[in-house]
Amino acid sequence: MILKIEHLGIAVKNMEAANRLFATLLGTSSYKEETVEREKVSTSFFRVGEAKVELLEATGPESPIARFIEKRGEGIHHVAFEVDDIVAMMEQLKSQGFELLSDVPKKGADNKMICFLHPKSTHGVLVELCQEIR
Amino acid sequence: MILKIEHLGIAVKNMEAANRLFATLLGTSSYKEETVEREKVSTSFFRVGEAKVELLEATGPESPIARFIEKRGEGIHHVAFEVDDIVAMMEQLKSQGFELLSDVPKKGADNKMICFLHPKSTHGVLVELCQEIR
Repeated sequence: MILKIEHLGIAVKNMEAANRLFATLLGTSSYKEETVEREKVSTSFFRVGEAKVELLEATGPESPIARFIEKRGEGIHHVAFEVDDIVAMMEQLKSQGFELLSDVPKKGADNKMICFLHPKSTHGVLVELCQEIR
Repeated sequence: MILKIEHLGIAVKNMEAANRLFATLLGTSSYKEETVEREKVSTSFFRVGEAKVELLEATGPESPIARFIEKRGEGIHHVAFEVDDIVAMMEQLKSQGFELLSDVPKKGADNKMICFLHPKSTHGVLVELCQEIR
């Protein structure tokens, strides 16, 4: 079951500049920066109500974030929904015809197990499912 | 002050198909459909935690949503943040160098006063500020 918007992922070219700008806009500083080498991204998180804004910067030219920015420019990259049981949700969505980008959950940033849905099965929206690791 | 993510706006080609898909994904039906003729959009809202997902369909070829889809395809169009005082927030952001798309708040869907920030001042993110009309 989807519980809430957990975070909104935003692809940026320069983390330092984006951190400054979103701190000003959101009225709060980034509370965590974390690099996920396997995904080739650096991340920075801001709290906004029950959700977060996650800035994403490529760690190299072959990062999915670099390719996204090359193709579409900076901007909103994905939305992540928190689920109560990611394995059950992945099973359910697969049986309902959604296309998942992995067969099992992967370890993401911010202490989460995550799985992405292919945007072609969700009207162009890159959807991440995530569940906190306890 | 920004309080929370109020909604995430998603541009879709066909509202009927998108309504079905997002009802399945989110596990809840659209609770409101509303056309905003001045903005040339039809909208459909789903609750997700404290936030909403707003589907946006163009009402004609000259709609900003039609132009968005033509250029980038379906997908996430904007993020709306709820603010406690939209006029004060607009003044503050203007003085901090953000570019606003209107000088005064406009009437939006879902009983809101709204204002957009130009994406070129926010790393490519189309940001809406909104405050409920009481």
